[in-house]
Parts: sequence; C-alpha cells; structure tokens
Amino acid sequence: MAVEIERKFLVKSEAFKQDALTSYSIKQGFLNRDPERTVRVRLKRGKGFLTIKGKSTDGGLSRFEWETEINPKDAEALLQRCEKGIIYKTRYELKSGHHIFEVDVFHGENEGLVVAEIELQSADEAFIKPEWLGEEVTGDKRYYNSYLSQYPFKDW
Amino acid sequence: MAVEIERKFLVKSEAFKQDALTSYSIKQGFLNRDPERTVRVRLKRGKGFLTIKGKSTDGGLSRFEWETEINPKDAEALLQRCEKGIIYKTRYELKSGHHIFEVDVFHGENEGLVVAEIELQSADEAFIKPEWLGEEVTGDKRYYNSYLSQYPFKDW
Repeated sequence: MAVEIERKFLVKSEAFKQDALTSYSIKQGFLNRDPERTVRVRLKRGKGFLTIKGKSTDGGLSRFEWETEINPKDAEALLQRCEKGIIYKTRYELKSGHHIFEVDVFHGENEGLVVAEIELQSADEAFIKPEWLGEEVTGDKRYYNSYLSQYPFKDW
Repeated sequence: MAVEIERKFLVKSEAFKQDALTSYSIKQGFLNRDPERTVRVRLKRGKGFLTIKGKSTDGGLSRFEWETEINPKDAEALLQRCEKGIIYKTRYELKSGHHIFEVDVFHGENEGLVVAEIELQSADEAFIKPEWLGEEVTGDKRYYNSYLSQYPFKDW
C-alpha cells in the first residue's frame, strides 16, 4: 500500500535503448478500467501481479497503489476474464543520475507509442533529463494503460 | 482458482439460528460489480480477502472464483476505494447432513433479506432441505451481493 509519485513523458528517439540496463516483456489486462479503482492483472518476467490503483491527486502526480504477487497461472486465468484490449509492451530500465527511468515500447494496437516514467520521492524533486525525453504527459489520462486498453493508440 | 457449484435459497424463518455452529460479521465492497469480472474486497473474522469472480454458467450453478488472503489493513484501505454500497451482513454456518449451509442475514440498506447457500460437488448432488429453506434463487442476479450493493433490498 503506497502513494506513488511519478512523472510521465513521451519519448523522442530510440537513443534510450543504448543505455538500457535490462528489458523484458509485459502482458497486462484490466478487470476494471475506471481510473478511481483500476484493477490490473500483469505478467512480467514469469511472475504474476494484481494491482489496484485509486484516483490520482496533485494533477496526476500521485496515486494510491496496492499490489500483490500472484501465481503466474492464476494471472493467465484472470487475464482471460479481463476487459477486451490486452496490452503488450517491452519495458526498458535505465539509470539517469540516481533515478530509474522505465521506458515502455507498446506493441499490437498501441504500436508506435513509447512512454517514459520516473518515480520520485516528492513532486518537486529534481532529476536529469536525457536528450531523448519528450513532452511531459503526467496526469493525462489518455496515457493511462487502462485508457489505451480501451482506446488504442492506432485509433487516435 | 476454482469453479464453484452453489445453490442459493431464500429463508422462510429464523429457525436456522438454533442449529448455527458459528456466526460472524462480514463487511464487503466491490471494486467492480460487473458479473463477468466481479472484484470483491472482504473483511471477515479479522482477515482480509480479495476475490475475483467470472461469468456464471449452467444457469448460475457454477462460477469461476479466485481468492487471495490480504492484510486486513489493506482490505480497509481498498474498501475505501470501492463502489458506493458497502454490504454488512452476519453469516451463520450450520450443518445439514454432510453439507454446510451458509446463511447470510443482511443489515443496513439490505435489512430484511436472508439468503442461504450450499456448496455442492456436482450440479445434481442430493442434499437435505431444512424446513426453514424457502424458494430457490440460484442464478438470479438480483441476489448477487454485487447487485445488492447497487440496488439494495430496501428499494425493491
């Protein structure tokens, strides 16, 4: 149980890949897409996760989040009960100063979309902006994965 | 992860209370009320539970169900993010032959409603019907707790 402070940005080039420490596939679906009570099922690196997110506050900077690890077979069974619009993406992790950027490259119906996220300790914490970092989209609900699941990027 | 086979009945009298082995309070809410992907948060005997139910089959007799125990403090936090319409009820457990009946006496907005459930191994398994057992309501979605949360019994 935590309140996460995150800022989200579009990505201008593929230059981030050179600095990736690791990358892996993510498959996820939603048992509820409502931004006030999002219920996400995720498969990541052979592990299953169930995550519940609440309403965002501070202009989208922070959001209640609760997560539990679940059996990956259970995650597969739950993914079959999710709303239509399973999300497939490759996540790259890289360091920028003492922060970690997570860059998600979307596939399938969301091909062409690349989004970077950084987790901060406070809303005004400074961080190093890599040259590939584009426009900030923190708090823009269109970039919520729950929104993309229903309104994929290819239809924008 | 299981498919549960359950039959549900109304209750005609309070006679079941004489045979109760145990009773306890349940408080529960829904992160999604959709019968195809119900997400329930429950507090029961000091423990927390998160339960996901799928679409019912066989005329409401069986339904996909997945449950995990969670920290009761997390359950409290998640209950605050649930849809309006928290359900309060007292559950009585009693034996009938080698089966267990769970009888739920609803409170608050659902005061006056009493429902009994029996879990079976197969759809046609025989069981002893106590004299207090009323009309069968198996598969009637109005008696789903997720429905009662939105359309409480007092308004029927």
